[in-house]
Amino acid sequence: MVGTFVTPAAEAGDRGQLALRCCVVRETRLDTARIRAARRVIDPIFLDTPLYRCEELEPDLGCTVSIKLETANPVRSFKARGTEVVASLLAGHGSRAVVCASAGNLGQALAWSGRGRGLDVTVVASRLAPAVKLDRIRALDARLELVDGDFDMAREQAAAVARYYGIRLVEDSLDIETCEGAATIGLELMDSPTSFDAVLIALGGGALATGVGHVLKALAPEVEVICVQPLGAPAMTHSWRQRRVVTTDSTNTIADGVAGRRPIQAVLDDLLLVADDAVLVQEASIIAGMRMLLDHAGLVVEPSAALGIAAIIEDRERFAGRHVVTIVCGSNVDIDAYHRWVGAAPRHGC
Amino acid sequence: MVGTFVTPAAEAGDRGQLALRCCVVRETRLDTARIRAARRVIDPIFLDTPLYRCEELEPDLGCTVSIKLETANPVRSFKARGTEVVASLLAGHGSRAVVCASAGNLGQALAWSGRGRGLDVTVVASRLAPAVKLDRIRALDARLELVDGDFDMAREQAAAVARYYGIRLVEDSLDIETCEGAATIGLELMDSPTSFDAVLIALGGGALATGVGHVLKALAPEVEVICVQPLGAPAMTHSWRQRRVVTTDSTNTIADGVAGRRPIQAVLDDLLLVADDAVLVQEASIIAGMRMLLDHAGLVVEPSAALGIAAIIEDRERFAGRHVVTIVCGSNVDIDAYHRWVGAAPRHGC
Repeated sequence: MVGTFVTPAAEAGDRGQLALRCCVVRETRLDTARIRAARRVIDPIFLDTPLYRCEELEPDLGCTVSIKLETANPVRSFKARGTEVVASLLAGHGSRAVVCASAGNLGQALAWSGRGRGLDVTVVASRLAPAVKLDRIRALDARLELVDGDFDMAREQAAAVARYYGIRLVEDSLDIETCEGAATIGLELMDSPTSFDAVLIALGGGALATGVGHVLKALAPEVEVICVQPLGAPAMTHSWRQRRVVTTDSTNTIADGVAGRRPIQAVLDDLLLVADDAVLVQEASIIAGMRMLLDHAGLVVEPSAALGIAAIIEDRERFAGRHVVTIVCGSNVDIDAYHRWVGAAPRHGC
Repeated sequence: MVGTFVTPAAEAGDRGQLALRCCVVRETRLDTARIRAARRVIDPIFLDTPLYRCEELEPDLGCTVSIKLETANPVRSFKARGTEVVASLLAGHGSRAVVCASAGNLGQALAWSGRGRGLDVTVVASRLAPAVKLDRIRALDARLELVDGDFDMAREQAAAVARYYGIRLVEDSLDIETCEGAATIGLELMDSPTSFDAVLIALGGGALATGVGHVLKALAPEVEVICVQPLGAPAMTHSWRQRRVVTTDSTNTIADGVAGRRPIQAVLDDLLLVADDAVLVQEASIIAGMRMLLDHAGLVVEPSAALGIAAIIEDRERFAGRHVVTIVCGSNVDIDAYHRWVGAAPRHGC
């Protein structure tokens, strides 16, 4: 089944034009039947992750909050859902090698998925990525190549490596497997007996948002799909709002997992079809979200995984009384940095 | 199917007597068919919890380590597996009220399970139990009664409440539902495609150990079942070693969830049939285990949930090169105490 969607512009447009513009029905690049099929090639260790209501968060947040927890697996993020699809296709075609650029989590996931299938994995990452992520990529037997620039510089270098060796380049969010792998989270949300009103999704390159968003809009279009990005790395949100690719010169956020500067047109096109909103949050709210998840849910998360809670913190009124799901997408955090951020509250101080 | 077991004494006995003593075949109180049936009445939110290898722990521990994670659910411990069975039976029989003594986690779980089935839940707990556990019991609409003594004093008071009101007393570990609920973890371990050599189980009253141990000994008797208790609360371990109930006058451990003084004879009898060993660990090892789970697995756990890692830390040679599963049984920890314990390492200090 291919999802078809009324463009958000039609819904956002003025009422006088609504009838006309509703006729503009488009399709994302994703395919719901392929997403269902993806579940069969993804190692079950990454599937059917916990989804549970966390009442302890609710008095502070003023809404019903459920957590979709993507950290209790061997790579501590959702990324392996996509790399499992990529690696199984490559292995099925007899490929021997693959390369990706990574902010840290995709690289770990591709290393894990490739190792189990006899693939040589090269990961290109920024020298500034968290040491814990780089260490894990190495520990999973991948070849790690560091660049002096940021994630978008790593993307260029990974493309060069792929050309030079003639091997497959995995491009996060652009490659449909990364989106459809992430989209299996959406299927699991749909299988839940509980209904909810909105899903908060960390927005970086867009694989998670377009993947989950596609499934929700195909199967439960009434659920609000809200993407959340740091104010310090707003390129995709600006792009979504302006309906064209907007790049930035730099990023400035602790949420390293979503700190891209150059959105991809095809991903933006999909995002425009499935996202109901894209919001930007402050660093202080991300830290408050991390602290809240620790104090009230007992969860250590990386900054990107606290974006959803940060969005609620910044706009309690919007979510008041509603049932909101937030996808806790990763926990690969440098523990010393984590202590600095989360331990900074006076009551934890020395 | 009822499991039948050679008593550990036979396996531990000297070889000359083995043939004779192997004829002593006994049964636990648990029933594997009933445990399978229990899965059908337990809310799925508590079932099929993550089981995954955590390679980051392995260099430090010298063995292959998999985690069975029982914290990603609405009560943040495994206890609801048992209370779901209890509450569904009570509701099915038209009962309206139930009481239990609790070190904190059973009370939360019974409150959760009872609330959803219209049961009035009373929990009797020690005034010294972690505030976070007592707060959660109240938040889940249970009536909380505090006693000035410890958990075993709470047990007496809960029995008095049950007699006075003529309502069902849930006795953790004695009541078969609490053991068979916990035993569903064993079924999930058996369903894993991965084989392992040993399972490390926190030992308190014994529900978790006899439950999981029963299933393992029935379905995979070659897997070593190792119970772990703090040196500061050793009553059940002493009882297991001496094959008779041994009580202590007091306990002295941060692992509040397993701090009992008075083992129950019937539970000890079961434990003698299914446990291959029971070991005691120091407080420093429990703290080191908690810190290791934070630093290398990104998991916040309560002290009882770190007992398995503590056992490996204290005897790396025993586990060297083997595949060990540790059940991370709860994460209800006072966050300030947690920071004191885990943040005490010099590199996290101020």
